[in-house]
Amino acid sequence: MPEGFRAPRIDPGPAIAALSARFGKALSTNATIRDQHGHDESWHPTAPPDAVLFAETTEDVAQAVRLCAAYGLPVVPFGTGTSLEGGPQALHGGLCIDLSRMNRILRVDTEDMDCTVEAGVTRMQLNTHLRDTGLFFPIDPGADASIGGMAATRASGTNAVRYGTMREAVLGLNAVLADGSIVHTGGRARKSAAGYDLTRLLVGSEGTLGIITEVTLRLHGVPEAMAAAVCPFPSLCSAVNTVIETIQMGVPMARIELLDDVQIDAVNRYAKSDYAVAPTLFLEFHGSETGIREQAETVAGIAGNHGGAAFQWATAPEDRRRLWQARHDALYACLGLRPNCRPWPTDVCVPISRLADCILETKADLAGTPIPGPIVGHVGDGNFHVCFVLDPNDPAEVAEVRRLSDRLVRRALAMGGTCTGEHGIGCGKIEYLQDEHHDGLLVMQSIKRALDPNNLLNPGKVLTVLPANP
Amino acid sequence: MPEGFRAPRIDPGPAIAALSARFGKALSTNATIRDQHGHDESWHPTAPPDAVLFAETTEDVAQAVRLCAAYGLPVVPFGTGTSLEGGPQALHGGLCIDLSRMNRILRVDTEDMDCTVEAGVTRMQLNTHLRDTGLFFPIDPGADASIGGMAATRASGTNAVRYGTMREAVLGLNAVLADGSIVHTGGRARKSAAGYDLTRLLVGSEGTLGIITEVTLRLHGVPEAMAAAVCPFPSLCSAVNTVIETIQMGVPMARIELLDDVQIDAVNRYAKSDYAVAPTLFLEFHGSETGIREQAETVAGIAGNHGGAAFQWATAPEDRRRLWQARHDALYACLGLRPNCRPWPTDVCVPISRLADCILETKADLAGTPIPGPIVGHVGDGNFHVCFVLDPNDPAEVAEVRRLSDRLVRRALAMGGTCTGEHGIGCGKIEYLQDEHHDGLLVMQSIKRALDPNNLLNPGKVLTVLPANP
Repeated sequence: MPEGFRAPRIDPGPAIAALSARFGKALSTNATIRDQHGHDESWHPTAPPDAVLFAETTEDVAQAVRLCAAYGLPVVPFGTGTSLEGGPQALHGGLCIDLSRMNRILRVDTEDMDCTVEAGVTRMQLNTHLRDTGLFFPIDPGADASIGGMAATRASGTNAVRYGTMREAVLGLNAVLADGSIVHTGGRARKSAAGYDLTRLLVGSEGTLGIITEVTLRLHGVPEAMAAAVCPFPSLCSAVNTVIETIQMGVPMARIELLDDVQIDAVNRYAKSDYAVAPTLFLEFHGSETGIREQAETVAGIAGNHGGAAFQWATAPEDRRRLWQARHDALYACLGLRPNCRPWPTDVCVPISRLADCILETKADLAGTPIPGPIVGHVGDGNFHVCFVLDPNDPAEVAEVRRLSDRLVRRALAMGGTCTGEHGIGCGKIEYLQDEHHDGLLVMQSIKRALDPNNLLNPGKVLTVLPANP
Repeated sequence: MPEGFRAPRIDPGPAIAALSARFGKALSTNATIRDQHGHDESWHPTAPPDAVLFAETTEDVAQAVRLCAAYGLPVVPFGTGTSLEGGPQALHGGLCIDLSRMNRILRVDTEDMDCTVEAGVTRMQLNTHLRDTGLFFPIDPGADASIGGMAATRASGTNAVRYGTMREAVLGLNAVLADGSIVHTGGRARKSAAGYDLTRLLVGSEGTLGIITEVTLRLHGVPEAMAAAVCPFPSLCSAVNTVIETIQMGVPMARIELLDDVQIDAVNRYAKSDYAVAPTLFLEFHGSETGIREQAETVAGIAGNHGGAAFQWATAPEDRRRLWQARHDALYACLGLRPNCRPWPTDVCVPISRLADCILETKADLAGTPIPGPIVGHVGDGNFHVCFVLDPNDPAEVAEVRRLSDRLVRRALAMGGTCTGEHGIGCGKIEYLQDEHHDGLLVMQSIKRALDPNNLLNPGKVLTVLPANP
């Protein structure tokens, strides 16, 4: 991992002793706990931190960061460990700050349709809490991730085509900066033209500019009516073209998800379902009763023109839940294809006009490899995933997946897309940030140096930093 | 104007001579042209630049900035001069870069519903160009502003409640930084988790971090049906509560604008219309024929419960155009109230639950002053404006408006709002940025110092900068 200005690891002993004196039992150096905090759900090798702090308050985080800064010890934040590009790996050792005990929902305002939560609150916890308010938090990356982690990685997921990503959902936040100061960004007004958009700068910075400890979120009203449907197609191309036309018609889809034949087969095995093994769209409509009928008629018409089968409807809440559970279990279903293997999920996002080309070229690439790589996608956004299932201990397999993944990213970039639509850069895609952003990377490095001059916050992630005055 | 680290003006002569040698007749030092570029549409006094460059290309801008950087001459960008907080005033002299000749529409993609334009393209020019594509660019701040200026000020306007602000509309941009380098940010994918969000950092930075020269915009499909309506209310409170309930019901309003009795009276005089002189909502619905009928019924029901009159409909394009022209001419209508006076338009934005309180307290404040201050608002966002009409040469009037405006901003901040929803900070609201953002201001200053260490870009705007090493 290239890392310009981090010297060989410092001896963490003195810093850990000082942290231990301050935090007592909330600090752990237990090997199992350190290991649990040294990886995410991806194939990236575990890199345990030197210690784990279970923070209870923003002030805990601030004090811990101040102590680490004094000793030069790196700090890595940890939410639920469900990221997919090696976000929590402590590549240079240091302190992992686990935010899961900061799980208080501080405020819900039904009139303003917003709330403020601590970073460790998970999205399902929040939605359970909101159940009787008529509101919900729509961003849904699949995993029951923490809100802080979702903000830090600019998460999105199945509902983003209608409700946006964390970029749109976060109204403001509290974060602890590299010097241990606490900054509050944004506010509760729906829009503001007051100064630089620090909220958007921190959202997606993956813990490298600050540790997010509180988030104010925009919520949405539960729609009057919701209906979900499944529709298999004769070819990937016909399914993707259905999506493109639907988006271009302006149908306000709540969800429009593609699963290729390989993924459907994996889902059937895992969930014991009997979906036709074919490229398939999972759809969801939100609106008034009339509204969703109108939307569904439009989309059914488009799908029919492309050879799609009749919609299989799920309108009862329990049926809808089961349908989306099948979609959300895609990662685990993939793993079921090869026992004792690990997932290497990668994602790209392209302008929707290039989506069919991008998926079809990728599919052709995958035809030439024995390693399973099911495709699922939030295709309404032009975003799709390949989830390779590999033996991470087999160097040939790792090399092969790296080659295929590299070709996928370069294909997406050549089509005007991005190297990651929602998984983030972590330590897995650093090399592509330069290819995508060119001189923009220099600006990102300037900002990183300005806000974290000693490269203490999650070093080795997102970007390689060079010293300002070497 | 407090300005930490700008020494007394340098002699612009050598820099102007070098610029003149490079740019010939595209550079002007004509007094009238300099004066025209030294102010916007607000009351802020004119501060002319030392010279004006009519740039034709991004490379022109880059070369000019490099020359200015070499000589230490400040650079101020200029679009259409329709800003409202003293954005283009050359407070420290320097070079004004007028971008109006960079008015090429570089690309429109109907499949991806996006386009790329040069910074000097105006929003009306773009919409005229899009006329036959089935697409439109929704952001509408009233004035026919340039897209570059709208991005730089994070503009929004009447349609923001449905389509968002420039924060959501800008997919990517090209900007020239303080050292004359050209940076490209963002991309054409609808979402990305690749690195820091430089696009959102530059949007709203008001020319203090970079000069925006090209913008890639998200476009929207022209709705199948559109209808506008006007509805007077017995009181401000009933009108505002109608808005709050409408938003809370999730009705996807395209526009929901409030004009108070003073503003309606001004509009009637200016546009020779005969709207009832009462607090009034101007509404617009976008959707399918069925959809807008459904929306309109819901809103009419809410309005009726609050004592609103029957809707006066405008469905023919010409009638809708006339209705919104009356709304857009609000500023000029205000000026008609006091010939030979200047406008001091100010805006705040609060959580919608506090909107009625904020407007009513403001109205009570205004009752005690002889200076006219009509209220108009994009109330669906919690955003409203007071447009004071004053004699800027009368110190007592300036002091009185400053007092009322200060009370308005502090009221909004106390209610959890922002000191400006859409006009920006410019040189008019610098003191409030600290009150609103506290330690966030330090972070903004760090970023400014990192990207513009010599404070060359639009100095004296948005924030006061202190030297890193005094």
